[in-house]
Amino acid sequence: MKTMTGRTVVPAREGRAVQVAAGRRVRVVDLEGGQVGDLFAFAAGDVTEQLSAAHTRAVTSRLFPRVGEAFVTNRRRPILTLADDSSPGEHDMLIAACDPARYAALGAAPGHASCAENLDRALAGLGLAVEVTPQPVNVFMRIPVTGSGRLEWLPAASRPGDSITFEAAMDCVVVVSACPQDLVGINDGGPTPLAIDVLD
Amino acid sequence: MKTMTGRTVVPAREGRAVQVAAGRRVRVVDLEGGQVGDLFAFAAGDVTEQLSAAHTRAVTSRLFPRVGEAFVTNRRRPILTLADDSSPGEHDMLIAACDPARYAALGAAPGHASCAENLDRALAGLGLAVEVTPQPVNVFMRIPVTGSGRLEWLPAASRPGDSITFEAAMDCVVVVSACPQDLVGINDGGPTPLAIDVLD
Repeated sequence: MKTMTGRTVVPAREGRAVQVAAGRRVRVVDLEGGQVGDLFAFAAGDVTEQLSAAHTRAVTSRLFPRVGEAFVTNRRRPILTLADDSSPGEHDMLIAACDPARYAALGAAPGHASCAENLDRALAGLGLAVEVTPQPVNVFMRIPVTGSGRLEWLPAASRPGDSITFEAAMDCVVVVSACPQDLVGINDGGPTPLAIDVLD
Repeated sequence: MKTMTGRTVVPAREGRAVQVAAGRRVRVVDLEGGQVGDLFAFAAGDVTEQLSAAHTRAVTSRLFPRVGEAFVTNRRRPILTLADDSSPGEHDMLIAACDPARYAALGAAPGHASCAENLDRALAGLGLAVEVTPQPVNVFMRIPVTGSGRLEWLPAASRPGDSITFEAAMDCVVVVSACPQDLVGINDGGPTPLAIDVLD
């Protein structure tokens, strides 16, 4: 697999894909703070094997893995291990990627950018496509569960330069969308860019 | 769409599909009590539009809908409305369907039945197939979330004859698997049958 190390900037409201070799680390950096990233991961060469939130919860018996634990695919194989987290440590693995239907329901004009379309566009750049948008890992997104099973939507608390780092457990494609949500207050101060660093 | 009313028994460890017309009610009955059912729903004529746990959480801002609220598809269209619940009211929408990889990890001999394979077999009976197993709605399954984001696996508390009833918001295919899990104690007393009643 052709992979590169170095920084890929994800402009505000856009998405980018990186190819990551097994054993390499991939870091998502919140450049300006308060920004949610929708992260997707796929086995290299087969997008039908993909990071699965539901399988990861089953394997970890947690809503979100702890540092040292792995996110697994829909075939229950580790794909990314949570290696490090310099942020306040609040991330979401419950909520679907935003999409045109979401923005239509919120009253946005047609053409609002979305994480689902950012994923499709980033994959298309690699000649890949998915039939159904997988559930993302929403880094820096704060969706606390209250005792009654209610979910709250809070602004991201990540500070400028905060990051979350994963180690690839297999050759994979990682897509990160800098969430364009500006109608629900999850991105503190509005959409801003992220960076993806693939480390040596 | 060809649909029928009446009862479909789902034998222990097996799955069955029913076609449900918009406006009809479909009831899942725990015949002997303590049995988890993995429920999947697909838009009639297009299995790439499917009940989505992640989109349903986003739309309801809850871990599980309340009576009167709808489960939505990955296109955010209501597919099933939770109409009635005579059980203790504990259901899960966090955990993936069991599959051969799950049973291999638990040390089962090859060939153990699984909800993922039950889904595939039930869909195949209608000439349908999915690329990736969707996350099910696990009726009667008890997976409480503790304050620290940990998930517990408890035996189903449903009593003989308890049921959960949905109203179809669109023509759809509903698949129910009587979960064959017998290595983790979610099915109280071991796997038993369920019934699917499609009501007039």
